[in-house]
Amino acid sequence: MNIEQWGEHKLIMSAMSDMIESMDKSSQMTKMISHVCNSGGKKIRPIMLMLSSEICGGDSKKSVDAALAIELIHSASLIHDDLLDGGLIRRGIPSAHEKFGYAAAMLCGDFLISKSIELISPFGTNAIRDFGRAGMCMAEGETCDVKSVEGTFDEGNYYECIRKKTASLFAASASIGAYIGGADDEVAGKCRLYGEHVGTAYQIVDDLLEYMHVQDDKKSTHESMTLPQIYLKHMSHEDAVKRSIEEVEKQVRYANDILGTFDPCGSTDKLVQITNHITIDMLP
Amino acid sequence: MNIEQWGEHKLIMSAMSDMIESMDKSSQMTKMISHVCNSGGKKIRPIMLMLSSEICGGDSKKSVDAALAIELIHSASLIHDDLLDGGLIRRGIPSAHEKFGYAAAMLCGDFLISKSIELISPFGTNAIRDFGRAGMCMAEGETCDVKSVEGTFDEGNYYECIRKKTASLFAASASIGAYIGGADDEVAGKCRLYGEHVGTAYQIVDDLLEYMHVQDDKKSTHESMTLPQIYLKHMSHEDAVKRSIEEVEKQVRYANDILGTFDPCGSTDKLVQITNHITIDMLP
Repeated sequence: MNIEQWGEHKLIMSAMSDMIESMDKSSQMTKMISHVCNSGGKKIRPIMLMLSSEICGGDSKKSVDAALAIELIHSASLIHDDLLDGGLIRRGIPSAHEKFGYAAAMLCGDFLISKSIELISPFGTNAIRDFGRAGMCMAEGETCDVKSVEGTFDEGNYYECIRKKTASLFAASASIGAYIGGADDEVAGKCRLYGEHVGTAYQIVDDLLEYMHVQDDKKSTHESMTLPQIYLKHMSHEDAVKRSIEEVEKQVRYANDILGTFDPCGSTDKLVQITNHITIDMLP
Repeated sequence: MNIEQWGEHKLIMSAMSDMIESMDKSSQMTKMISHVCNSGGKKIRPIMLMLSSEICGGDSKKSVDAALAIELIHSASLIHDDLLDGGLIRRGIPSAHEKFGYAAAMLCGDFLISKSIELISPFGTNAIRDFGRAGMCMAEGETCDVKSVEGTFDEGNYYECIRKKTASLFAASASIGAYIGGADDEVAGKCRLYGEHVGTAYQIVDDLLEYMHVQDDKKSTHESMTLPQIYLKHMSHEDAVKRSIEEVEKQVRYANDILGTFDPCGSTDKLVQITNHITIDMLP
C-alpha cells in the first residue's frame, strides 16, 4: 500500500501547490503557509473526505477544495496546539512558532482557518455546518487536553476529550465527503460515525505509542493523561497496553462494519486500507 | 441617536443571549464566551450587515445569524490580538487571557471562529466566501500591525494595513448583508466599498484618538505606527492632526456618496447615522 500513488493523494497535493503558487510570494504569510504545507503528513483526512464522497456516488475531483479546507483547518489546529503545549518539533521539523515566532504562527493558524472557509464556501449548508462544528469540537477538545493533567481524569473523560479533539475532524471529513457525493442525512450520519471510530482508534494508538516511548520525532514539554495511563492506575503495564490495543481493535471493527454496509468498490477498499494503516498497522 | 433602541441592535443582542443560553453551562468555554459577549461593544458591524441587507430589499430578521457570525469573528480577532499585543484591558474590563489564561483565551478565539462558520453556513457561497476572505485579510493585517513598529512604514503601508486589519470586516459585513438581501455582485460590490470606507475612517479615528492620548480605557504595552505619526515626520503636530481629520472626512464622504446611490429609506438613514457616529462624531 502506497498512499502517495493514489489519485486522491495526487489531487490534494496538486491543489495545495496551486494554492501556494497563487499567493503573494513576498508575504511572510505565504512563506509560513508554504513551510506548514511542505512539512509532510499523510493527508489522511482529505483523502478520507474524497473517498467518502466517492462511496456516496460523487467524483473526487469535485470535492478537492473541501478536502483542502479540511487539511488547512487541521494544519491550523496543529500550529495552535504546538503553541499551547510548547511542541518544538512537528513531523521532524521545527514547529511554526519556533521558526517564525509566536505572533506570526498564531496568525498563520487564523489565516488558514479563514482560507478554509473560503474553500468550503461552495459546498452547501450541510457540509459547511459540519465543518464549523468540527472546529468547535477541536477547540473544546484542546481545552480539555490542556486541563487533563489536572485532577481526576477517567476513561469517560478521555473518550469525550479525544472524540472532540481528534475524532471530530475525521467524522466531519467523512460526512462532508458524503454530502458532497449526494448523500442524505442518514447516509452522511453513517459516514460521520465511521470517521469518528477511525479518529478515536487513531488517537488511542498515538497515545499508546507515546506511552511506550516509541515516537521520537515528536518531542513535547507537556504531557496529557492518556488511556494506558488511566488503565495503569488499576492494572499492570502489560495489561494496560493489551487493554488499549483491544480498544483500538474494537473501534476499527466498528468503523469497518459501517463500511461493510456500502456497496463494495475501489473506494470502500481504500477506506478500509487507510483505516487499518493509521490504526492497527501502527501497533507494535 | 441611541443605537441600543434600534430593532437591529435588539435582534443581535437577543441572538447572542439565545446562543449562550443554549450552551453547556458547566463548560469553561461557555464561561469565556459569556464573558466576551457581555463585555460591551456597539455591535456596529452586525448592525451594518442587517441594514445593508435591508437597503437591498432583505428582512433583517433573516440575516441575524450572519450578523452574529460577524460579531463572533470580530470578538475572536480581539481576543487573539490582545494575546499578541499584550493588551490587558479591553472595553474597560480585563481581556480574556488576563482572566482565563493564555491557552484558554486562544482556544476561545478558535471556538468563536468555528461557531461563526456554523452560523454563516446557510447563507450561500457568496456570503460565506466574503466571510472567509475577511478573516484572511484580518490575519494578514494583524501580521502587518505586529511588524509596523519595525523599519520604514509609509502612508501606503498604513492604508494597506488598516484596509486588511480593520476595513475588511466592515466591507464583508456590508457585502454579506447585500447578498443576503438579494443583491447581485455589482450591488454587493458597492456595499463592500461602502464598508471599506467606513472601516478605514473608523481606524484612522481610533489611531488619531490614541495618538492624542484621548483613549484611556484601552491600555496596551505595544504601539504600532499610525497615520498621524507618519505625518509627524514631515509636519507639525497640529498639521498632522488636521491632515488626519481631513482623511477621515474624505473616507466618510466616499461612504455616504455610495449610500446616496440607494433609494432613501429608514435603513439608508441609519447607515449614514452609524457611519458618522463611529467616525466624524468621535473627532475632538
